[in-house]
Amino acid sequence: MHNPQLNKHGELQHLLSLDGLNASIVRHILDTAQRFVGVSDRDVKKVPLLRGKSVFNLFFENSTRTRTTFEIAATRLSADVINLNIGVSSTSKGESLLDTIDNLAAMHADMFVVRHAQSGAPYLIAKHVDRLHGPEVHVINAGDGRHAHPTQGLLDAYTIRHYKRDFTNLTVAIVGDILHSRVARSDIHALQILGVPEIRVIGPRTLLPGGIEQMGVRVFHEMSAGLKGVDVIMMLRLQNERMKGALLPSAQEFFRSYGLTPEKLALAKPDAIVMHPGPMNRGIEIDSAVADGQQSVILPQVTFGIAIRMAVMSILAGN
Amino acid sequence: MHNPQLNKHGELQHLLSLDGLNASIVRHILDTAQRFVGVSDRDVKKVPLLRGKSVFNLFFENSTRTRTTFEIAATRLSADVINLNIGVSSTSKGESLLDTIDNLAAMHADMFVVRHAQSGAPYLIAKHVDRLHGPEVHVINAGDGRHAHPTQGLLDAYTIRHYKRDFTNLTVAIVGDILHSRVARSDIHALQILGVPEIRVIGPRTLLPGGIEQMGVRVFHEMSAGLKGVDVIMMLRLQNERMKGALLPSAQEFFRSYGLTPEKLALAKPDAIVMHPGPMNRGIEIDSAVADGQQSVILPQVTFGIAIRMAVMSILAGN
Amino acid sequence: MHNPQLNKHGELQHLLSLDGLNASIVRHILDTAQRFVGVSDRDVKKVPLLRGKSVFNLFFENSTRTRTTFEIAATRLSADVINLNIGVSSTSKGESLLDTIDNLAAMHADMFVVRHAQSGAPYLIAKHVDRLHGPEVHVINAGDGRHAHPTQGLLDAYTIRHYKRDFTNLTVAIVGDILHSRVARSDIHALQILGVPEIRVIGPRTLLPGGIEQMGVRVFHEMSAGLKGVDVIMMLRLQNERMKGALLPSAQEFFRSYGLTPEKLALAKPDAIVMHPGPMNRGIEIDSAVADGQQSVILPQVTFGIAIRMAVMSILAGN
Repeated sequence: MHNPQLNKHGELQHLLSLDGLNASIVRHILDTAQRFVGVSDRDVKKVPLLRGKSVFNLFFENSTRTRTTFEIAATRLSADVINLNIGVSSTSKGESLLDTIDNLAAMHADMFVVRHAQSGAPYLIAKHVDRLHGPEVHVINAGDGRHAHPTQGLLDAYTIRHYKRDFTNLTVAIVGDILHSRVARSDIHALQILGVPEIRVIGPRTLLPGGIEQMGVRVFHEMSAGLKGVDVIMMLRLQNERMKGALLPSAQEFFRSYGLTPEKLALAKPDAIVMHPGPMNRGIEIDSAVADGQQSVILPQVTFGIAIRMAVMSILAGN
Repeated sequence: MHNPQLNKHGELQHLLSLDGLNASIVRHILDTAQRFVGVSDRDVKKVPLLRGKSVFNLFFENSTRTRTTFEIAATRLSADVINLNIGVSSTSKGESLLDTIDNLAAMHADMFVVRHAQSGAPYLIAKHVDRLHGPEVHVINAGDGRHAHPTQGLLDAYTIRHYKRDFTNLTVAIVGDILHSRVARSDIHALQILGVPEIRVIGPRTLLPGGIEQMGVRVFHEMSAGLKGVDVIMMLRLQNERMKGALLPSAQEFFRSYGLTPEKLALAKPDAIVMHPGPMNRGIEIDSAVADGQQSVILPQVTFGIAIRMAVMSILAGN
Repeated sequence: MHNPQLNKHGELQHLLSLDGLNASIVRHILDTAQRFVGVSDRDVKKVPLLRGKSVFNLFFENSTRTRTTFEIAATRLSADVINLNIGVSSTSKGESLLDTIDNLAAMHADMFVVRHAQSGAPYLIAKHVDRLHGPEVHVINAGDGRHAHPTQGLLDAYTIRHYKRDFTNLTVAIVGDILHSRVARSDIHALQILGVPEIRVIGPRTLLPGGIEQMGVRVFHEMSAGLKGVDVIMMLRLQNERMKGALLPSAQEFFRSYGLTPEKLALAKPDAIVMHPGPMNRGIEIDSAVADGQQSVILPQVTFGIAIRMAVMSILAGN
């Protein structure tokens, strides 16, 4: 089946999901990002690769943090960035999603960065853009429903490669609310593409999707067993709305069972790294002593995230 | 009487309305826009004409779409753009409109793009700016109440010229809610200035202003008669609030009588073009088969709209 | 005691308060601003001093006007500016203030401009940044609670120097709601540092902080006595919420006693200047005849405010 995010030369036309991408495309993104890490360290943090391009941040779901990372990445590539908080504009005037896209494409948009509460919305947009506006317009999925958050998966892979060098001898645990997490899904795809031999998911039954073993992961319900000997611990954010719902007894209870404390961290390898996509709920999914501890690489994740987004944007614009 | 939007050399100082502009000024804007159409097609979509200028988008009435077109136009001219959503700021602190303008002018604003729910607000601002802040500061009306939306009138004229070349043998129909439409008013002025011999307005009595014939247009209440043999059909947006009010029986009823369907479109000349200022209410004022059909030039209108706004901004800044 | 806003060479690392700064630092800012006043008058209002730097406007308390002045100042220095309206983003997701700062610092922020309803918040941020992110990251206080608004104090000092040349023979009156005013506090510090021999505060007992005499100012409750012979009158904004509270009988009553009218202005020296930080409540703390009169320097304050903010940003970035 044709992968809708590749062009006819098999190059990345859109970034919608890591699912179905081959290792050489993923490695090319990581390698490109590595060159951009240096740009943000410079005195003048800009390269002219996207000069005169128009990048539209289309956030149908509010996320200042993610929007900011894309805005910074685009700005450091010298693009012109337009932020559209769509919730309060055209759609409230009854205009359809695709009419909005058509209009912005008619203004010669070069790239859409799309965050949407509905899984699949960026696919719909990419398909429409391909049909009506041609190969000059690119779509990046900045998180759609529970489905995917591919730049997060890529920045997490980048971070692991930075600290562990080789993927092919690692054991990685993903902990928490797997069920509702697009981050977990994108992380699992990234790790599998890059050859991680053992991926574990750890969480209560109510927060694990049925049949997740079929994704090729090992399922654990206890931290004591799941964290034993792992090289990488990826904590997930527990959404506030879950804590109030029927899926969980209480935040305190969750922390007792699945919150990452120094004691639980000691079960992992001594040089294990701790990751979190942010924003963190300190004292719920992670203890401050761990979040701010020596094994935490949570802030480097953010730094590498800018480089990954610069890499994806420059690769798409070049294809 | 002195036209408040011209300077003492008869050049455009502000763009407040098309009413009272002569054909040579309007043609100069269209010709300038024609040169800018190419800029948005380039790889680097920027020219340095407004480099270092400060353009303020003052939207006292929310309109993401229109604001975005001005932001893109200014950015492609290399201006610095500041977006002010005034509804939520100073005026809520009790500051007067003109105090806000004075403050921004004191920050060395070069251009104000003003959208306001009250007819005449941009005139008030322009007059105040002329008196206090001198000829370096320019005002563009981006839509004021029911009064005028001159850049829309200009981009519509540009679109018609693009497809029909000559204005002096055309019959143009404007359809729908003429009463509340600043777009209709600006379109009529543009078409008359450029020599269109027959302009028709079509709509129910409740949505046509009394005495509109005095603007030099022919009035029709039936699409069957009004669309016969026309070269251009300009549909207007039906505001949601009209549909709920006493002015209309229902949206379905409106569509049946005035919605542009393929059948009604067949009454016009075979090469007639269909226009709409957006955002469209599909199934209310226009059928999707027409909106997305071969005779629709709705997306080119958007594209030309960027070029028109670049033209107006660069002409004002140069005068 | 170590001043937390100075680096180990005694240079300005952050601008948090004027309290504790020496006259040579303050004069250096004013002198630098003087060179920037010319930049905003140029045809191309930009200098490349902050090119490629990322400036974050962190407004935890909404203030379009102040945010705009910092945005313009940073843009004219060629910085990339990211506006974060924090009220609606991360903090609503339960992320702590310092986690937000850590994240933005990890994106290689160069400068934070912070407005916060809580006194001391910018200090907390600066201390945290110093410890975790090193000397490359700078913090500017854009107003914190009732505590300080140092760039306002500096621009007021600049304005007085512009019109009066020498500080050491001046009598300055600050009028109105001293109790809740961070502007008043920063003005008093600026004037004392620069050697103003007599600073008066004028207001009702309910709007004067107890023990304010210990700041070295003279207290007056009547305009008739307080304005006599002064060179400079600095009016303060009366917050709407004060007018509704128990602190004041009514807005009309306040205007009668403390509103600056031409009659009261006549008590000051004939060449006295009138200042106001904006936004003004005309008819409450100031009469329009005075606000728009010959002695008013309220709009020049705004103009100089851009230059002051450019000066502070460029000095911090250079240290």
